[in-house]
Amino acid sequence: MQPDDRRDLAAMMYPLMRALVAVELPVLAERGVSMWGYSVLTALDRTPIRTQAALAEAIGADKTRIIGTLDELQGAGLISRTPDPGDRRVRLLAITDDGRRVRRAVAAGIRAREERLLATLPAGDRRGFVRALQALSALPPAELESLAGGE
Amino acid sequence: MQPDDRRDLAAMMYPLMRALVAVELPVLAERGVSMWGYSVLTALDRTPIRTQAALAEAIGADKTRIIGTLDELQGAGLISRTPDPGDRRVRLLAITDDGRRVRRAVAAGIRAREERLLATLPAGDRRGFVRALQALSALPPAELESLAGGE
Repeated sequence: MQPDDRRDLAAMMYPLMRALVAVELPVLAERGVSMWGYSVLTALDRTPIRTQAALAEAIGADKTRIIGTLDELQGAGLISRTPDPGDRRVRLLAITDDGRRVRRAVAAGIRAREERLLATLPAGDRRGFVRALQALSALPPAELESLAGGE
Repeated sequence: MQPDDRRDLAAMMYPLMRALVAVELPVLAERGVSMWGYSVLTALDRTPIRTQAALAEAIGADKTRIIGTLDELQGAGLISRTPDPGDRRVRLLAITDDGRRVRRAVAAGIRAREERLLATLPAGDRRGFVRALQALSALPPAELESLAGGE
């Protein structure tokens, strides 16, 4: 029935996701940033985002959930919220220089730990794994779901 | 600071995990099995398990959480619970022939959908991705965590 007896992808990914979250938590704790805070900083380091709703969508979070996170980040001087000159009701979110430094330090710490995990793999599989993750995670959500869903 | 600007592995895996769960749910629903039920059937199809505690550990579930799942599976005739002849206080959990059929039908349905996702990748990356997942998910949890954690 199956060409080989591999386990489902989700079943294989589940323990790995848990280990990867375990990678991130101590690095985040050391810098006093939450997981959602780090997601926000990462999104804003790539591109300033105009509204909180757009940011929430970009990081796959609930809109109300990130308000507390944004308050914390702003309180710590890691992001700024300024009124949009074109529409005073809208606030533009941006990362500050401090926020950029914190994000990059966290990313470097996570990266160093990830590399220890990846170093257990043969070089070809390691490259294939990272490239496959990059390609699949770059698919638009609708395309990912249509590939995955339906008959 | 970083050799290339790839995103964190967990950040790339997160949308993929969501898509893979979306792959599984309709296939499971069609057969009337829950996600945890499917995990139980998969574990028991590999090897009969002596205690509910051992089963819970094998699938990474909370021990109390799976009791309802086991009742459901037994009610549907997909698993059996029989007293261990060596220790009457212990019940041996095993998959039934019907359970095996359901598990394999679900696995085949999931597999077909996964292959559509994987088919978007170059063949080499696809193989590297699956092999890397197999290798990383086969690491004992303690080793996975020690590779991922600490300095």
